[in-house]
Amino acid sequence: MPNPTAAILVIGDEILSGRTREANAHHLAGELTRVGIDLKEVRVVADDEAAIIAALNALRATHTHVFTSGGIGPTHDDITSDAVAAAFGVGIGVRADARELLESMFAAKGVAMNEAQLRMARIPDGATLIVNALSGAPGFSIENVHVMAGVPSIFRAMVETLLPRLERGTPRVSREVRFEVGEGRIAERLGALAAEFPDLSIGSYPFAENGIHGTNIVVRGTDPARVAEVVARLEAAR
Amino acid sequence: MPNPTAAILVIGDEILSGRTREANAHHLAGELTRVGIDLKEVRVVADDEAAIIAALNALRATHTHVFTSGGIGPTHDDITSDAVAAAFGVGIGVRADARELLESMFAAKGVAMNEAQLRMARIPDGATLIVNALSGAPGFSIENVHVMAGVPSIFRAMVETLLPRLERGTPRVSREVRFEVGEGRIAERLGALAAEFPDLSIGSYPFAENGIHGTNIVVRGTDPARVAEVVARLEAAR
Repeated sequence: MPNPTAAILVIGDEILSGRTREANAHHLAGELTRVGIDLKEVRVVADDEAAIIAALNALRATHTHVFTSGGIGPTHDDITSDAVAAAFGVGIGVRADARELLESMFAAKGVAMNEAQLRMARIPDGATLIVNALSGAPGFSIENVHVMAGVPSIFRAMVETLLPRLERGTPRVSREVRFEVGEGRIAERLGALAAEFPDLSIGSYPFAENGIHGTNIVVRGTDPARVAEVVARLEAAR
Repeated sequence: MPNPTAAILVIGDEILSGRTREANAHHLAGELTRVGIDLKEVRVVADDEAAIIAALNALRATHTHVFTSGGIGPTHDDITSDAVAAAFGVGIGVRADARELLESMFAAKGVAMNEAQLRMARIPDGATLIVNALSGAPGFSIENVHVMAGVPSIFRAMVETLLPRLERGTPRVSREVRFEVGEGRIAERLGALAAEFPDLSIGSYPFAENGIHGTNIVVRGTDPARVAEVVARLEAAR
């Protein structure tokens, strides 16, 4: 059976302006590889309702899972939850269990919750909460869309709650062989190997390090024996 | 007149597997902000011809410019140039001027160029070369699509050649005000300001630092006086 597939949708003006370097997609990419869910696409869009809805609807129709990051805080620019509700055509409102989580967090800090903060308890109808260990504000899953925070530490805590709930695929084994020659010098042999092992992905990544122009070859696939065979062939050719 | 818009298309399995953390989109995002081209979207897709063509055709139809990164080297997994030619429905072949650039590079290194390396001189019909200072292998522009290397140093060199050729917009001024309270505490005032200044983008970014939970407010817009007005209002409210 083929592995489940995934897309990540990152939402936030600060990424597109170059102010902030995105970190969550890279983290989740590694986690998905570990559990055998094949990440096929990442998109970054602005804090713009129409852009979020269009991307969500395109991605959720074509992938097993869509993971979003960003836009679920208490301020006016946090519009992800509303955009998700609109994309699914469902209602959205403050939910009792989400409100309780928030109230407990603020009570523990000894402060009262205000109206703006209560916005973080607004959850689209029919969603399941993604509770996390770091913040009282939950994420949520609705059908195959999983909505998480943009703050990297909270995003990671939500991924930790969420991933064990999802069906795993067969993790891809990945092995790397280092050549101390440029990729052009080994391109022909690599192409022949790739044609002989069409079930594997053989990637070629040039590097420059201490004056050496070399190439890392990454061999990936779900069958460890096939990956090992290609690695042995590459090592013999070095 | 509204600013030109842009999308970045990053091509490469290594980003989606989590092996490599993407760097080029973040660099170009900052450069585009500087020249007044509004980056609206970033996509990352695999080394997969159908995925590249679909993303290219969607993005080039909706943005003034599309910038691509990755997949123009000499190996079998470098399929971007062919995918671009297919997306535009034009031919592709080794071009004399691109071949000369490559030959000069290899001659300077004192080595002969092989067949695989000659692949880097394959340019879609009607394209303009993006020559760069670091590598003999050129990128190219075809209509509103600008195709560049994935290796970060070479990508940057190509951006340096390319950007002066493009029409600039009005750069957005960006200013930041730091609050040492969580964003929930200032959300209401921010929302009122955002409603009063709809021409500006007012972003709210929580941070945690030395035990302080604070918020950076980023005010962006093309009119420096309007940005300064909001910054003054925020500073007075601190």
